[in-house]
Amino acid sequence: MSVQVGTAGRKIGVLGTGAVGQTIGRKLIQLGNQICMGSRQANNEKAIAWQATVGPAASVGTFADAAAFGDLVFNCTSGSGTMAALGAAGADNLRDKILVDLSNPLDFTHGMPPALFTPHHDSLAEQIQRSLPNTRVIKTLNTMNCTVMVDPGRLEGGEHDVFVCGNDVAAKTTVTNLLRDGFGWKRVVDFGDITGARAVEAYVLFWVRAWSALGTAEFNLRLIR
Amino acid sequence: MSVQVGTAGRKIGVLGTGAVGQTIGRKLIQLGNQICMGSRQANNEKAIAWQATVGPAASVGTFADAAAFGDLVFNCTSGSGTMAALGAAGADNLRDKILVDLSNPLDFTHGMPPALFTPHHDSLAEQIQRSLPNTRVIKTLNTMNCTVMVDPGRLEGGEHDVFVCGNDVAAKTTVTNLLRDGFGWKRVVDFGDITGARAVEAYVLFWVRAWSALGTAEFNLRLIR
Repeated sequence: MSVQVGTAGRKIGVLGTGAVGQTIGRKLIQLGNQICMGSRQANNEKAIAWQATVGPAASVGTFADAAAFGDLVFNCTSGSGTMAALGAAGADNLRDKILVDLSNPLDFTHGMPPALFTPHHDSLAEQIQRSLPNTRVIKTLNTMNCTVMVDPGRLEGGEHDVFVCGNDVAAKTTVTNLLRDGFGWKRVVDFGDITGARAVEAYVLFWVRAWSALGTAEFNLRLIR
Repeated sequence: MSVQVGTAGRKIGVLGTGAVGQTIGRKLIQLGNQICMGSRQANNEKAIAWQATVGPAASVGTFADAAAFGDLVFNCTSGSGTMAALGAAGADNLRDKILVDLSNPLDFTHGMPPALFTPHHDSLAEQIQRSLPNTRVIKTLNTMNCTVMVDPGRLEGGEHDVFVCGNDVAAKTTVTNLLRDGFGWKRVVDFGDITGARAVEAYVLFWVRAWSALGTAEFNLRLIR
């Protein structure tokens, strides 16, 4: 199976029906792709309501339906539900495909501020990669609000950073091109192999505090040299 | 005891003889303060060599000597040695004083990338504050290389961020003023109470990966709204 580098004309699965999945799915449709949004139940009300707003390029189904549909799959589930969602999606439906992981392993069981539920020396993206050894997991876009993910130009002309990491270099290039040419990211920083997810997932603890300090979720960081 | 807000004419203890302690100590001397650099042994060779380069405003001693000397104390020890160093410094020598904590709880026992040795829902600065309830712990400056700590203007005219957190609002103001008026920081972001240390300590995992990606330790972040 080969994955096209273009940003249009693809079949893409989006796992998750929350704000992230809806925003990513809408953007990918605007770029000219077909989307299947997957959730636990094929008749998920949020997915159906979203579908009505984006038109015939969207379909809805189970996690397995969405994974089977896409030549590329976005994981937009919440971190606490990610492993179950991917289990339901099925390793065979994700075989040899690129899985773009946007999830964050946030543990809110002790209230705010959240902690990570992953153990030290690990990350959720690494857990995903170990559970799906024949899938090419790329971690990205987990470090900003979803409105910024798909429209970086809304903040200082897009002069701020997004990070990508993963073990498969060709897959990382495909995702980087989609971020640049499709989503409009000017600054895509390569964070190496999938262990880079430890860095960007830990960063989210910082993000939550900055959100509180700044009083808005519409922000991002720029690395200054 | 009252602590002056000015950036000169103070007696300041610096705990730790590494690059961070030496750089912070030198800067504080340049600002017109007297420094006692503390370490495990009063005759620490690195401290004595450093003292020779900065002149008569510097003295060297034990952790307890440095803590007793300062009306303000900087913790520049490595995270793995911090609790032992503060135990040696002594709660009585730190009573009612501001302790500026720059340490990071990095665990390198599994190699690179490091993890944090603090448990979830905690931070090293909170451990310090719990162990020294009569000391005013302020966490700051742990998110960049020491060359940047004392000279933010070396990167993009200083248009990037430093974070401060702590439970004592007056102490946080004192440290913020020192950062602005002494060290030259234009952008000091208030990260709230001492639990904000969880955010800036977790950020260091991100920092380490960015260091590798950028190929230089001379960088910092700017929050973009």
